[in-house]
Amino acid sequence: MKALHNIWYVAAMSTEVDASALFHRKILDTSVLIYRKQDGTPVAMHDRCPHRFAPLHLGKRVGDEVSCLYHALRFDCSGRCTHNPHGAGATPPNARVRVFPLLERHGFIWIWMGEAPADPTKLPDFGPLDDGHPNAFAATYMHMKANYELIVDNVMDLSHIDHVHGEIITTRGQLSPLTPRLTETPTTITSRSEWTQQPPLMIFSPFMADPQASARHYFEITWTAPANIQLSVGAVQDDSKNLDLVDCIGQYDLHTCTPETADTTHYFFATRRNHLVDDGEFNKAKIQAMHTAFETEDGPVIEAVHAEMGTDDFFGLHPVLICNDAGPIKVRRLLRKMIDAEAQTPAANLRVRAVGSH
Amino acid sequence: MKALHNIWYVAAMSTEVDASALFHRKILDTSVLIYRKQDGTPVAMHDRCPHRFAPLHLGKRVGDEVSCLYHALRFDCSGRCTHNPHGAGATPPNARVRVFPLLERHGFIWIWMGEAPADPTKLPDFGPLDDGHPNAFAATYMHMKANYELIVDNVMDLSHIDHVHGEIITTRGQLSPLTPRLTETPTTITSRSEWTQQPPLMIFSPFMADPQASARHYFEITWTAPANIQLSVGAVQDDSKNLDLVDCIGQYDLHTCTPETADTTHYFFATRRNHLVDDGEFNKAKIQAMHTAFETEDGPVIEAVHAEMGTDDFFGLHPVLICNDAGPIKVRRLLRKMIDAEAQTPAANLRVRAVGSH
Amino acid sequence: MKALHNIWYVAAMSTEVDASALFHRKILDTSVLIYRKQDGTPVAMHDRCPHRFAPLHLGKRVGDEVSCLYHALRFDCSGRCTHNPHGAGATPPNARVRVFPLLERHGFIWIWMGEAPADPTKLPDFGPLDDGHPNAFAATYMHMKANYELIVDNVMDLSHIDHVHGEIITTRGQLSPLTPRLTETPTTITSRSEWTQQPPLMIFSPFMADPQASARHYFEITWTAPANIQLSVGAVQDDSKNLDLVDCIGQYDLHTCTPETADTTHYFFATRRNHLVDDGEFNKAKIQAMHTAFETEDGPVIEAVHAEMGTDDFFGLHPVLICNDAGPIKVRRLLRKMIDAEAQTPAANLRVRAVGSH
Repeated sequence: MKALHNIWYVAAMSTEVDASALFHRKILDTSVLIYRKQDGTPVAMHDRCPHRFAPLHLGKRVGDEVSCLYHALRFDCSGRCTHNPHGAGATPPNARVRVFPLLERHGFIWIWMGEAPADPTKLPDFGPLDDGHPNAFAATYMHMKANYELIVDNVMDLSHIDHVHGEIITTRGQLSPLTPRLTETPTTITSRSEWTQQPPLMIFSPFMADPQASARHYFEITWTAPANIQLSVGAVQDDSKNLDLVDCIGQYDLHTCTPETADTTHYFFATRRNHLVDDGEFNKAKIQAMHTAFETEDGPVIEAVHAEMGTDDFFGLHPVLICNDAGPIKVRRLLRKMIDAEAQTPAANLRVRAVGSH
Repeated sequence: MKALHNIWYVAAMSTEVDASALFHRKILDTSVLIYRKQDGTPVAMHDRCPHRFAPLHLGKRVGDEVSCLYHALRFDCSGRCTHNPHGAGATPPNARVRVFPLLERHGFIWIWMGEAPADPTKLPDFGPLDDGHPNAFAATYMHMKANYELIVDNVMDLSHIDHVHGEIITTRGQLSPLTPRLTETPTTITSRSEWTQQPPLMIFSPFMADPQASARHYFEITWTAPANIQLSVGAVQDDSKNLDLVDCIGQYDLHTCTPETADTTHYFFATRRNHLVDDGEFNKAKIQAMHTAFETEDGPVIEAVHAEMGTDDFFGLHPVLICNDAGPIKVRRLLRKMIDAEAQTPAANLRVRAVGSH
Repeated sequence: MKALHNIWYVAAMSTEVDASALFHRKILDTSVLIYRKQDGTPVAMHDRCPHRFAPLHLGKRVGDEVSCLYHALRFDCSGRCTHNPHGAGATPPNARVRVFPLLERHGFIWIWMGEAPADPTKLPDFGPLDDGHPNAFAATYMHMKANYELIVDNVMDLSHIDHVHGEIITTRGQLSPLTPRLTETPTTITSRSEWTQQPPLMIFSPFMADPQASARHYFEITWTAPANIQLSVGAVQDDSKNLDLVDCIGQYDLHTCTPETADTTHYFFATRRNHLVDDGEFNKAKIQAMHTAFETEDGPVIEAVHAEMGTDDFFGLHPVLICNDAGPIKVRRLLRKMIDAEAQTPAANLRVRAVGSH
């Protein structure tokens, strides 16, 4: 699969891995076990006993260690074998399970699948998710039968929303004619659109002074590698105000994709809004609406595109590009450049060969 | 897939594509969209938007045009992009969908999938389907998990009918001992058998002077490329009469196969009988009986053969051939010759490479 | 698939092939038809008509012969075509179905899939299954989604039983610390373990003098090619007695695997016990318990290992081996040596090429 490895991916929502779970998920074609130590710290390792290759998630917890179901070899959080009930009980020194570095931030457990040393500074700051009332934050997960780059394309270019989605987030045709303003750094690509519509986006209008009057709106979308997209969106009716989340009724979202295989993706979504922040029922309804929109509108289109393409070689199919593709195409090109650079790093290659667990 | 391309295949029964449908079907490994213009004329194009590869059948009709669901690019019946709601609205000149020529005849919509110019004279005349009372005509469709040539084999050699089928079309062992008379032209292979049986074929006996008496019968089966088989069958008790559909109680059938993939086939069937021509209920019962016979008798055998072969290289498995194979083997050899000739046509190859949509 | 061919595999339990059956099963990637002659002798042949490749099991019995459903070619037990209803009725001399030698012994029908002449002396003697009351014998079959060598591993090394299984066959931790005693011959590998536990194995304790007292136990496990494992297990409380089936409460089992494909296996099991030998209800309960144990305990682990490995190249994944692996590893190495030797036998290769039915 063409993907970055020396980078952080979401492995799970924090809420997916409870205190006693032996949670497992395939990430970048590799089976991963995740569980929490008794102090709550999450641990990830290859979900494969090095002895007879039984998935470790079938086993059981023994304190902070995990015991394989098949022959009861036991491994600690560093992947070292600490117990062997067979024969004289010697633990083979080469019986090591590969451990994956984790970070737990912003409601997610992030994993580093690459061979290079994990670099916490490579995880972007998604701090806006953290600050505020707990009932203004929500996260969710969807499994998609599509290559992850098709989902990034979908979020990086929102010009589809008037065509794919229903009334709830229609811009009444205002968005498509706009050419988003793109800004780049060596590691980010940002796309910003501003427009005026009447009435405002229905997700915001109930919280505005005049729900039927015109309002200025903006989207600001920032990609960071490998597949994180921060999305700020808001609306304001007072012309003296700024188009940002300080002045607008709006929300900050994180969309992030973790490849399972070349053909399937773990799609995670988190959101924090700046209005009606303490309303738990509204919070549940919002995340449910996001689920419904994605699963009945974007999701089927993206999966149909994936099936129709029959390959992950997007450029090889010679797409006809239009102005709204500028953002996602810049993302695809920068990501490809980073993947190619990683593949040419000799140290990483050597470690991959030595460990041999890919 | 080994198949002719510069030839007519049935894409759909006329009744499958109604006035508002965005009908789609995979043909020769290519996804095809079919719909009718407001004047009723059918249109076929690649079911893939050239922008982001969304299947166009997910979109919507706008007059005689089709609008892609994903980003609302709109295409006319020539495959030209006529509307782009994004940016300044320029329609990219290279945003063209490949269009496939169609002919609507004999109750079917026929498609030309090849790169060479469509040649209407290459569609054989199946006129006997057209003339007569509407209640004497019926057509149907079955999806088969088998290579199309195995279905052609089945219809070209009817010596199986006493073994595979039940009482309704038994020849009481008369057919197998006959060696069919084969005649050939550069583009057709015809197999004819004549025999006498008592009582007559049960599908005809109720319409004969003496349903229990002996009758002369005939089959005449004509293959034309790629996978069309015309089948006339009849019975007559008056010795002064001819063995044809003028003199016999009988019917004219068209069996025709369209490869979906190398392993699956769209099998179409149409029939016109020369007796009880105005009886709509009888007509329905006849087509239902054909369905039942094929789906419970021929179909399972053909699909089992396909699965057992595990390849479409029939001759590579070294079949042991017997006299009744002469017809289908001639068909396989002529078809292979035509496929090889087409593959060596430089012009076609060049166009395939240029368009790149196979 | 890496497997021996010139050797005996179980094709079916004797009870699976009744007097009128046209039984079929895929063995070593080849479809096989099995039926019984009127005298009860089983016959096996390629389940593929050499004419049009229809599976013969779809056909019908005609005395000791089988008639193909599709065109009624008929074949005798030697695979020779004896009847052709087509044309003048000549039976093509090359219309031969490959016949596979069979032996029916020990409740199973054994098949020889290789090209070399079948050698009955290569079937080991599993005589202990035969002698005794019929209600003390049982046999069963399970289909496994795993390579057959993983099942052999599982039975050759029983150190997993305290970890995978429940109370019914727990050794209370006595077995794992033991290093089995291995003995080898050029064609067998035997692993023997002896231990004392209190209370005895629950499958035997009800039949012992003091069901709660300590007892000496033993396992003796003998592999023969390709995938036969004889297992004797017993317990005794009188210290003057021997650890064998003469003196112990115990049972003799045969586990044997027949590859269907590289990824799926026919797993057969037979057992004879030396206690409560006339109790038919107990016999049924025993075989049901074995089914339950394997299907809910060993089976899921083995299939999970197979899926996690994603290959049948066990050594290529660099397993970390421990003392209890000595037996199964010797089996894997000896089997691989035998497979390599077979592959280098020129005669066998020549016959494979000549017959061409692999």
